[in-house]
Amino acid sequence: MAFSHKEEHVDEGMLLLQANIDDMNPEWTSAVMDRLFALGANDVYWVPIVMKKGRPGIMLNVLCADSLAEEAKSLIFRETTTLGLRIIPLSVHRLSRAFLEVETPWGSVPVKIGSHNGQVVQYAPEFDVCDRIAREQKIPLKEVYDAVRYAYKARTQSELSD
Amino acid sequence: MAFSHKEEHVDEGMLLLQANIDDMNPEWTSAVMDRLFALGANDVYWVPIVMKKGRPGIMLNVLCADSLAEEAKSLIFRETTTLGLRIIPLSVHRLSRAFLEVETPWGSVPVKIGSHNGQVVQYAPEFDVCDRIAREQKIPLKEVYDAVRYAYKARTQSELSD
Amino acid sequence: MAFSHKEEHVDEGMLLLQANIDDMNPEWTSAVMDRLFALGANDVYWVPIVMKKGRPGIMLNVLCADSLAEEAKSLIFRETTTLGLRIIPLSVHRLSRAFLEVETPWGSVPVKIGSHNGQVVQYAPEFDVCDRIAREQKIPLKEVYDAVRYAYKARTQSELSD
Amino acid sequence: MAFSHKEEHVDEGMLLLQANIDDMNPEWTSAVMDRLFALGANDVYWVPIVMKKGRPGIMLNVLCADSLAEEAKSLIFRETTTLGLRIIPLSVHRLSRAFLEVETPWGSVPVKIGSHNGQVVQYAPEFDVCDRIAREQKIPLKEVYDAVRYAYKARTQSELSD
Amino acid sequence: MAFSHKEEHVDEGMLLLQANIDDMNPEWTSAVMDRLFALGANDVYWVPIVMKKGRPGIMLNVLCADSLAEEAKSLIFRETTTLGLRIIPLSVHRLSRAFLEVETPWGSVPVKIGSHNGQVVQYAPEFDVCDRIAREQKIPLKEVYDAVRYAYKARTQSELSD
Amino acid sequence: MAFSHKEEHVDEGMLLLQANIDDMNPEWTSAVMDRLFALGANDVYWVPIVMKKGRPGIMLNVLCADSLAEEAKSLIFRETTTLGLRIIPLSVHRLSRAFLEVETPWGSVPVKIGSHNGQVVQYAPEFDVCDRIAREQKIPLKEVYDAVRYAYKARTQSELSD
Repeated sequence: MAFSHKEEHVDEGMLLLQANIDDMNPEWTSAVMDRLFALGANDVYWVPIVMKKGRPGIMLNVLCADSLAEEAKSLIFRETTTLGLRIIPLSVHRLSRAFLEVETPWGSVPVKIGSHNGQVVQYAPEFDVCDRIAREQKIPLKEVYDAVRYAYKARTQSELSD
Repeated sequence: MAFSHKEEHVDEGMLLLQANIDDMNPEWTSAVMDRLFALGANDVYWVPIVMKKGRPGIMLNVLCADSLAEEAKSLIFRETTTLGLRIIPLSVHRLSRAFLEVETPWGSVPVKIGSHNGQVVQYAPEFDVCDRIAREQKIPLKEVYDAVRYAYKARTQSELSD
Repeated sequence: MAFSHKEEHVDEGMLLLQANIDDMNPEWTSAVMDRLFALGANDVYWVPIVMKKGRPGIMLNVLCADSLAEEAKSLIFRETTTLGLRIIPLSVHRLSRAFLEVETPWGSVPVKIGSHNGQVVQYAPEFDVCDRIAREQKIPLKEVYDAVRYAYKARTQSELSD
Repeated sequence: MAFSHKEEHVDEGMLLLQANIDDMNPEWTSAVMDRLFALGANDVYWVPIVMKKGRPGIMLNVLCADSLAEEAKSLIFRETTTLGLRIIPLSVHRLSRAFLEVETPWGSVPVKIGSHNGQVVQYAPEFDVCDRIAREQKIPLKEVYDAVRYAYKARTQSELSD
Repeated sequence: MAFSHKEEHVDEGMLLLQANIDDMNPEWTSAVMDRLFALGANDVYWVPIVMKKGRPGIMLNVLCADSLAEEAKSLIFRETTTLGLRIIPLSVHRLSRAFLEVETPWGSVPVKIGSHNGQVVQYAPEFDVCDRIAREQKIPLKEVYDAVRYAYKARTQSELSD
Repeated sequence: MAFSHKEEHVDEGMLLLQANIDDMNPEWTSAVMDRLFALGANDVYWVPIVMKKGRPGIMLNVLCADSLAEEAKSLIFRETTTLGLRIIPLSVHRLSRAFLEVETPWGSVPVKIGSHNGQVVQYAPEFDVCDRIAREQKIPLKEVYDAVRYAYKARTQSELSD
């Protein structure tokens, strides 16, 4: 019932780049994140930490393919204040992903579906579409999510019973 | 003086499974944790993080033996909303562990003892027993801990001076 | 040398609305924040907390004038999953604020200036303008901030020495 | 359609008790929390903070009625290591609450419903019942939540269309 | 058995000053804290928060007497980058405090004792003295704490049984 | 223009030692950190986490060379309460570092300069010197940083234009 499959697999040869930052203007964090995603990083996130002299710092984490590492490191050195980067090799297990369109009173919304060993284990309404509908219709975002999840479930249950 | 030894050693071939979660009902976290411990995970913990679009998310961390990885991953995919998992290989250095019973005014309490290179470096009253005594006796939990630590120290000092 | 003054003052009659949330999809946080700022809230921020049953939850904080409270509360009840809100009365001391335009190699940038008891104590380059320049010029955001701060300082020092 | 109503209201005369703790065994936190809830506190939560000398401490927060304050303070002094407590007066706005039972394939589950100005704004499956079902049926907890939310929505929609 | 009493009491007329900071070099945090304590603040602590545009910021908290507020606010405006401060009135309940010297193998150490309604509820070895002994004797700090707590308990128990 | 170079390089064979701690007096954290830096650790930091039974714990992180691992592990076992340590192998990319002295109205201050692929990407005033000047001159620390950064920029710009 869904389309645009991508199979479940494990990516070997991924890297986690980490930098502890205790002397940077936090205003720059969203810009750093945007530029890293634009470069092709798989994920970017910050962890609040306590550093030397009790400073409340932040740890930048960037998940990327080994092939992107040099560019990602250069970007981090240019855009943050760090003098060093930790590089942790790891692998990433990714579910099979597909998108399904479901109907709501305000139009159709894509639902991202994740499968493990051939079974659907996740379904998630697409945030950007739900958020746009909520703004345009002036309704709570959670109401849109609710409607999407209900429609998804109604559809899959009726398919099962066919 | 103690019994039920387990020798100090390093476990190679351990894994740290990590999932960044920004779209899950946090009510489910304790259930996820319980099921992972029941499965045999060595440790489970959550780290508050800041994710894409500035979302305050949580990072699930599961420490387990390589042999448990497939089951642990399936459990995480079934019980959380993540579409992917990072897998970091590591090793774990564990102290020698033993238990010693010490006497308190409210009965005996096990103390967990950790040794490094043959020397005791840790001793910790068993939480569940102390908590039960505190509830039954209607006394502060910290008073029970205090009594257990005092009894442990009195006993080991008298053994030393014998 | 600056324009569009707003005098230093203390706002009595402000409120801090707080809600502890342990059962909401964190994807909604940015939408909640945007809608609260659009409504006229003075500030919105999240604090990671540990709640009942050890759940890693988040505490929503909304700073607003007493006159906005009913609308802000309704918005929070509609857009989040909370069943209750704490309301803490407080006052807010605000510095005098002014904007000054300074010249950089890439055009002029507004600098927000805060004064306390008639003395300048803060100056901050305007994030959105700096970020736009950095993107257009394909240069690090921190380089733009640096140039703005340098230009501001050069200008105020030469004014002092006139 | 629901029962056991409690009307929407604002509780004046509530207090927030806060203690910054940097010298307590964190093992005691769950016991402190349990005892405070048993005493009648309305809410208890912990906030990670950075204290004097850069210590990563925790801030205990207890929300309670003014009439419970003396007992709650005594409990905190007995069960934690703090030498002082901050007391912040505040009020709490509570939604009208009701419970509705909905049917799932594994039996009925209570849903907590919150209303603001006469309109339903929240509905939340009861955690303990869902968790019990998930354990007994050996199914994911999120599947139980999903089923409960679907059943709730199906029922309210059919009532609306009657 | 102890000396230099200060009676249990409630300080009315205290203030909590709060500033959310998202554009300051975190290196300055320890300096801000030191200067505030030197000025006479009762407590200073930082809370990691998530601010506008998803920035991982920090919230400065300063507890002080109403009479210190103007000086404390000026210091915060001079030493941080904030343009505003929240001011929350509160009261502080402080235990009776006394110091008792106890003997250890490495000399005497002061223990801070807190009493509530005439009963000892806290006793805490003085950090600075224990830390100095640990450094001079090249022993673990926790061993010093242990010895101090043991000596305190031995002494108070023998006094009770006299 | 600068001296005491250290070339940009990647250190293979580094380790990250991690311990989750939920039963230690947080007063000891600064002492643990000091002793680890004194031993030669490259970095030490704490991450607030949520552990078993919902305990707000802290994760100790120690970055060190493989050759320091045994000593670092022994120190952690002696000075904290942990019974185990995770050991994650990683590498560290370090920028070329140099120091440059710049002149301020209150004397010269070292600036740490980091270069990537031969280009300066970071410059940071030395905290300890700036902090000493601020204390001696009774001026805000941020004013000292500002003066140092301005002087650095003025100097490098005039060198560029020579």
